[in-house]
Amino acid sequence: MTTKEYIDNHQQRFIDELLDLLRIPSVSADGKFSNDVKKAADYIKQRLESAGADIVEVCETAGHPIVYGEKIIDPALPTVLVYGHYDVQPADPYELWDSPPFEPVIKDEKIYARGACDDKGQMYMHIKAFEAMNATNAQACNLKFMIEGEEEVGSDNLETFVRENKEKLTADVILISDTAIISNDTPSITVGLRGLSYMEVEVTGPSRDLHSGVYGGAVANPINVLCEMIASLKDANGHITIPGFYDKVAELSSDERKALNEAPFELDEYRSDLDINEVAGENGFTTIERTGIRPTLDVNGIWGGYIGEGAKTVLPSKAYAKISMRLVPHQVSDEITDLFTKHFESIAPASVKVNVKPHHGGEPAVTPTDSTAYAAASAAFEKAWGKTPIPTRDGGSIPIVSLFKEVLGLDTVLMGFGLDSDAIHSPNEHYGLFNYMKGIETIALFHENFAQLSK
Amino acid sequence: MTTKEYIDNHQQRFIDELLDLLRIPSVSADGKFSNDVKKAADYIKQRLESAGADIVEVCETAGHPIVYGEKIIDPALPTVLVYGHYDVQPADPYELWDSPPFEPVIKDEKIYARGACDDKGQMYMHIKAFEAMNATNAQACNLKFMIEGEEEVGSDNLETFVRENKEKLTADVILISDTAIISNDTPSITVGLRGLSYMEVEVTGPSRDLHSGVYGGAVANPINVLCEMIASLKDANGHITIPGFYDKVAELSSDERKALNEAPFELDEYRSDLDINEVAGENGFTTIERTGIRPTLDVNGIWGGYIGEGAKTVLPSKAYAKISMRLVPHQVSDEITDLFTKHFESIAPASVKVNVKPHHGGEPAVTPTDSTAYAAASAAFEKAWGKTPIPTRDGGSIPIVSLFKEVLGLDTVLMGFGLDSDAIHSPNEHYGLFNYMKGIETIALFHENFAQLSK
Repeated sequence: MTTKEYIDNHQQRFIDELLDLLRIPSVSADGKFSNDVKKAADYIKQRLESAGADIVEVCETAGHPIVYGEKIIDPALPTVLVYGHYDVQPADPYELWDSPPFEPVIKDEKIYARGACDDKGQMYMHIKAFEAMNATNAQACNLKFMIEGEEEVGSDNLETFVRENKEKLTADVILISDTAIISNDTPSITVGLRGLSYMEVEVTGPSRDLHSGVYGGAVANPINVLCEMIASLKDANGHITIPGFYDKVAELSSDERKALNEAPFELDEYRSDLDINEVAGENGFTTIERTGIRPTLDVNGIWGGYIGEGAKTVLPSKAYAKISMRLVPHQVSDEITDLFTKHFESIAPASVKVNVKPHHGGEPAVTPTDSTAYAAASAAFEKAWGKTPIPTRDGGSIPIVSLFKEVLGLDTVLMGFGLDSDAIHSPNEHYGLFNYMKGIETIALFHENFAQLSK
Repeated sequence: MTTKEYIDNHQQRFIDELLDLLRIPSVSADGKFSNDVKKAADYIKQRLESAGADIVEVCETAGHPIVYGEKIIDPALPTVLVYGHYDVQPADPYELWDSPPFEPVIKDEKIYARGACDDKGQMYMHIKAFEAMNATNAQACNLKFMIEGEEEVGSDNLETFVRENKEKLTADVILISDTAIISNDTPSITVGLRGLSYMEVEVTGPSRDLHSGVYGGAVANPINVLCEMIASLKDANGHITIPGFYDKVAELSSDERKALNEAPFELDEYRSDLDINEVAGENGFTTIERTGIRPTLDVNGIWGGYIGEGAKTVLPSKAYAKISMRLVPHQVSDEITDLFTKHFESIAPASVKVNVKPHHGGEPAVTPTDSTAYAAASAAFEKAWGKTPIPTRDGGSIPIVSLFKEVLGLDTVLMGFGLDSDAIHSPNEHYGLFNYMKGIETIALFHENFAQLSK
């Protein structure tokens, strides 16, 4: 039996196993799910073992565990280190889901659940490709797995693990499926990723909630002040006003920008998919550029005062926001965090106090397109999808890409199979069965090609 | 026994009865408390009956009921119509209360509970003053009570009730205790009240929550946009930028402003009480003027995106705010609501949709200081507190004052006994036992004086 035949024959079980994984609400951001995060790690361990791994370990960290697994078939062969994560984003707001986020359903050939795509679905493809190669005696490269449980909260403990396990993690390339292709008609490989600085800010006005009639007009309202401070972080052209913010932003040549803008993109479809009348962003850049090569500042959450039913005339004591910035080469996450903090503190009026707390960050990254691994990935797509994949720059962040480069000296291939419309991080996240099965096939081809081209 | 002696003799029971009333969580804004609102109305009915009312009715409305009671002793005597409310503000945030909001406790000679002052405590003083006068054959005026259950949500059904019961509500003056005195050393009578327009706004960006990495920078973030819109509602001088907003604002003469600023006020104490470094407000006006004679715009609540623990990189679909404006003579609530709505819609960028919903409003009011009723109230304070009360303009709103003037042709005396530090609408609302008992005494004196001066 060929590996492809094995994959086809076991489609139903491959899907069922993913559904089992999706039923575990492994939300890393919220302490009340910590037992479930542990359960998900154990499930990955079992699945790696049954797929044929020789060594599988659930490695404890200061936070959630990292699952490590390997199957070394011949030290002379190249080694592929697969990275993925079994933790998921919070599922709020629950009321916007058409079916419960942790009770996966298949509808219109798609699996609906939190994590269906990001990253349980995409990560689990690698375990199934491994099983298929192993079962058909077709494993062409040595394989290592490092599946973590803190990606959605900043991978705080991954760096220590990587630094302490350099020997164990020796490999020739890192392979990650946690990105999207342009469409099922237009496969693509991500070669650039944005970095991240994520902040939480607290603005305090009076020391207690006040009656807005008795005090309103004379005492600074922390919500109004927070709104003013946030508004001032961008100018009328959509430029971020934090001093020094753009100092290290790499400017692309006009040729590079031209190539980037040749990727298929229909503004009308984009607008109608999101039901918006107009896109919005930094003046002077296209939508592809705004999400690919330019840094951003978004408020991810805001709260303060009375948010219940009806009306309450309160002048609140405090207002809060979660604010994140997507970074591009060669911005440095810690530096941007510092610039933001200093600036935000400096613009606070004397009538309030502010507290700025960094959540997590990650560095932007660009991966090479002239490597053996990129060629292997490109050829795998060509065979499985019938089309040469287009190299793209994605807006999202996978901060560990630059960590792997720095600590392990390894480049990464970002062979993702999701779609932008999969609603990752949103209600009704889903993942196409076509993408799941086709991805498993493409991954197996990558290993075959990588062994071949490395000779 | 004199009325004063009766009051002193029954102090413990007067307090206990108020505590019973405070145990009923009659939050009018939240549907889940509607049975409790009904229970509070029934409790007021019983207490009016035992105090000696001849007629007591719980009058159904389209919302929460109005309790009406009366004791007419002689049609030739003047009639005082007491207005108050038995509903309370929501108690959120519960976690900031030192003791549960609906389990009243007495600490440092103060009753701590939601509604302790606003307005259960202040309203109930009138029922106890009535009981004391009745029991000691000292009732000098006819008495009518109209105690409603929707003051904290805009008194939506009171206007219909008043218009349909003009005959029943015939009186010579309205008496209300729902305001504050300057301090226990400096009694005062409120002669001006601000009006209110209360709005809820919704800003919609994309039709679903998005991943802030994939879409951030290219799609308008409704939280950022809402912040920008709110920030633009005031200029650098603290002036509200809504066109036409100030057109009808009465400008006081410099003599009037001078008189207003002669009320005792210590900026240092004010700042240290609120733990703020600086006050803030409209340039060119003092703190007393900012809360007394100038209109305001405050965000009472804001929410959107991820507000749970940890970090979520979401570009949300929607953001919301509750925004209220305090109005001064001769602004008109409905007109300001219209001006706000039109302006807010007009400043929305093409990348979002906005929806503006008015909650409730009320007109600003000024009450006369040259009336018999004001003289009666002033003399009552003088006798009970040993000091002539200072006429003040309060920042809060009691919208029904202008309704009573318009429909019933009656002026109101705002004889309140609270303190600004009572934390009404806030966690740990409280009411001093001294103010409660002294208020009952002062109210009884008002009736005696009003009958006397009306002769």
